[in-house]
Amino acid sequence: MDGYTLTHKTPTRKDFIDTADFDQSEILDIITLSRTVRDFIKSGGYLNSLFHKNLAMLFEQKSTRTRVSFEVAMEQLGGHALNLAPGAIQLGAHETIEDTAQVLGRMCDMVMARVDRHESIEALAKYSKTPVLNGMSEKVHPTQGIGDMITIFDHWPEGKQAKDIKVVFVGDATQVCNTLCDMTTKMGMNFVHFGPTNHKITDEWLEIGRKNVEKYGGSCEWSDNPDAVEGADFIYTDVWYGLYDKETPKEVYMADFYPKYQVNIDLMASTGNPNCKFMHCLPANRNEEVTDDVLDGANSIAFDEAENRLTAQRGLVLYFGGVAQATLDYIKDQRKA
Amino acid sequence: MDGYTLTHKTPTRKDFIDTADFDQSEILDIITLSRTVRDFIKSGGYLNSLFHKNLAMLFEQKSTRTRVSFEVAMEQLGGHALNLAPGAIQLGAHETIEDTAQVLGRMCDMVMARVDRHESIEALAKYSKTPVLNGMSEKVHPTQGIGDMITIFDHWPEGKQAKDIKVVFVGDATQVCNTLCDMTTKMGMNFVHFGPTNHKITDEWLEIGRKNVEKYGGSCEWSDNPDAVEGADFIYTDVWYGLYDKETPKEVYMADFYPKYQVNIDLMASTGNPNCKFMHCLPANRNEEVTDDVLDGANSIAFDEAENRLTAQRGLVLYFGGVAQATLDYIKDQRKA
Amino acid sequence: MDGYTLTHKTPTRKDFIDTADFDQSEILDIITLSRTVRDFIKSGGYLNSLFHKNLAMLFEQKSTRTRVSFEVAMEQLGGHALNLAPGAIQLGAHETIEDTAQVLGRMCDMVMARVDRHESIEALAKYSKTPVLNGMSEKVHPTQGIGDMITIFDHWPEGKQAKDIKVVFVGDATQVCNTLCDMTTKMGMNFVHFGPTNHKITDEWLEIGRKNVEKYGGSCEWSDNPDAVEGADFIYTDVWYGLYDKETPKEVYMADFYPKYQVNIDLMASTGNPNCKFMHCLPANRNEEVTDDVLDGANSIAFDEAENRLTAQRGLVLYFGGVAQATLDYIKDQRKA
Repeated sequence: MDGYTLTHKTPTRKDFIDTADFDQSEILDIITLSRTVRDFIKSGGYLNSLFHKNLAMLFEQKSTRTRVSFEVAMEQLGGHALNLAPGAIQLGAHETIEDTAQVLGRMCDMVMARVDRHESIEALAKYSKTPVLNGMSEKVHPTQGIGDMITIFDHWPEGKQAKDIKVVFVGDATQVCNTLCDMTTKMGMNFVHFGPTNHKITDEWLEIGRKNVEKYGGSCEWSDNPDAVEGADFIYTDVWYGLYDKETPKEVYMADFYPKYQVNIDLMASTGNPNCKFMHCLPANRNEEVTDDVLDGANSIAFDEAENRLTAQRGLVLYFGGVAQATLDYIKDQRKA
Repeated sequence: MDGYTLTHKTPTRKDFIDTADFDQSEILDIITLSRTVRDFIKSGGYLNSLFHKNLAMLFEQKSTRTRVSFEVAMEQLGGHALNLAPGAIQLGAHETIEDTAQVLGRMCDMVMARVDRHESIEALAKYSKTPVLNGMSEKVHPTQGIGDMITIFDHWPEGKQAKDIKVVFVGDATQVCNTLCDMTTKMGMNFVHFGPTNHKITDEWLEIGRKNVEKYGGSCEWSDNPDAVEGADFIYTDVWYGLYDKETPKEVYMADFYPKYQVNIDLMASTGNPNCKFMHCLPANRNEEVTDDVLDGANSIAFDEAENRLTAQRGLVLYFGGVAQATLDYIKDQRKA
Repeated sequence: MDGYTLTHKTPTRKDFIDTADFDQSEILDIITLSRTVRDFIKSGGYLNSLFHKNLAMLFEQKSTRTRVSFEVAMEQLGGHALNLAPGAIQLGAHETIEDTAQVLGRMCDMVMARVDRHESIEALAKYSKTPVLNGMSEKVHPTQGIGDMITIFDHWPEGKQAKDIKVVFVGDATQVCNTLCDMTTKMGMNFVHFGPTNHKITDEWLEIGRKNVEKYGGSCEWSDNPDAVEGADFIYTDVWYGLYDKETPKEVYMADFYPKYQVNIDLMASTGNPNCKFMHCLPANRNEEVTDDVLDGANSIAFDEAENRLTAQRGLVLYFGGVAQATLDYIKDQRKA
């Protein structure tokens, strides 16, 4: 791929709800677009592809990365994002989700939502006539998934092919784990969830991963055996507590995960790969699921990963905004000139 | 009117507090402007009439439609709206309303506020040196009124003149009912509030309507007789409960309004007009003041009405921003080219 | 100085944490820049110096002036400000300040924060790779200080030199008092804090002021003697209660300050200077620290001062955004044309 030509000139679906709804070629389109746009902006280029376009951002939960990255992405592309903070609009309280979706879809060019329940994002998508992007549900975190794969592409292990790459998610099978399972196997990589039986990735997600493996190669499994990290190119983890409202008492989650699933220097060493990178979706609970020396260490790419949330959001709003190919054509022209 | 020429090149008042402060010609200016700008933007045109201009939006109560429509309107016109959410600035708490008004009027080009008490919007207007727009008080909802009249114009009953059009507001005499009473009679239409005696539109508002009738024709009345809906071209309703903080217990308001004032298929049929349209300012309490089959039915224009909140806000910020005629001249030029 | 040429083409420090970190020449650069940009915009000029640049605004406390002035400043310069309201991001709660700083520094071009504890702004500055501006801590209020000095320049007593100007801060030695002490003495003026012993400006700040006096002239002192206001050119005050969370009971602070330190007509008269101006950072607790007749009187410049918050913020984001000289060059060119 030359970085300027997409397989899909327009999205196959109006909405971006779950990476599992899209095949490899379309995910690659979004990644390519995101990286090309990033490079153009970093080199001093300006884009106005979403001039005067408005994205409504609906949050049922607090957010730092998702909120800031979408808002900055829209502004950098000539548009604007409206922050509808938790409580500002009560989805399903004074107005049904369906009615709110119809109204936002009439006034805004796109809607992004972080929801408590995955059904809410599906209802928003059904009733909004403009594209809906899932900014995280309890089931999946697809915008994170795009940013994570961009980060893996940026730090691609030298000389390796996708089928040689191993990504191990350590700890609790959160929505980030689910989406990573889909994304890595869709790229033909080897995915392992290394976690305790009572926080194991569901069979449904392993099945999604295995269907990807049939099409694209690689492998997909769960293990509670520490040997599972051997040969990993990327170790990924997420917090152990249920975030925000649903928080689990510390004694409970520590008993489940500590010390076996803590990503520390020893666990990193046990991969046997001195170049193994460390990833984390953040926020981190330092010295619980990951130690300071790993998160701040030379092999940590967790903050690059955070920055790639912005890289991904630009790609996503351009792609689902229907101006992806036009933007790449413009960049190509600018570079020739 | 050709859609490009206003009667009033500049507003007769600095502020937009109440539609009752303006005569028919000025309301028609705002409606014409709003519709012309909408058509231009829908056809792909871009406007920068409010380039680098800032609107402060002050909310003492939560808002979906008013907030999103003003913010999108400003962005689509090259400007920006600042969301000062409930609690972000406590009007009259750590600072007097008068002082806040002076400060916002010094920093921003316009101020829009949704207030608990009508006196607050009047104080803001008095002390802000820049224009103040009323985003709803307990007394009136003038921006809704402009959007509603645009919607009635969009769905004008074929072959009828204003004096032949009947608009019936059913249920509780909310601020939306007050403003609709003024707007419809100012246009020379026939207005009825059909509601129970203890939620009857005030004599003050009936008097405002009747003064309009003297000048512009039409009629204005209140009735609790179900025959009042006969021949209606538009049936309009609003929620029965006091919104947000002031909420009335459900048993109380149901006893007052249900079933007599519920807009359902039977009530719509009793108009005798198969083309009678249904309007609602939203949010709706589905299956209380309106049934699903009416709100989602073929004759419902409630979501067009929501979209016209945006149409109206663009017109209002251009008009009170002092760039209405210049914007219309620009659109006219663009269309010729 | 011609208003177009800066002594410092680039800032000597990445961050703007405290005016005391900068020498006179650099503070003068920022003031000159701010005033030139204000005049250009007031005369109808447009600037896009911060086109597509994003400022994250982090608030641990409520804010009217700081929030509105920074947001409007960014928009007027072609950029955008993200409002991260109190509670939207919990600094040091689910994520360490250091991690949040790293993430915001990756996604945004600048970070402004109003913090509960001065250590927080220092940590943000250390870990964010982009510039950090202090929007107020319990120790200093440097953006207020720039706006205040601009206001003093605007109302410069006719025929006087800096060494002849006397600025008296009356009442509680708040962070506004600390910064004013530094700013006035850095300009070579005479500064007095007139307040009760138990709310006296600290020796540390008097020492900062006295070091300025050695370099630039003027004087710096504290007094609880009412004669201290004699000959003042500017009387400045601030609220007596601890703002927001830290509020002191009214009886307590009234006993400390009232009536001796109330700025009323008598206190203004006791300066012996009929042209003595009154300043207040606002919000004011009317008829506590200042009476209505003074705040609303002919000699009050408190609302000009509020407007100059915007003047200052434009200068600060241009200066620390690294585009100060380029902006002045552009303005110079535009004016020639």
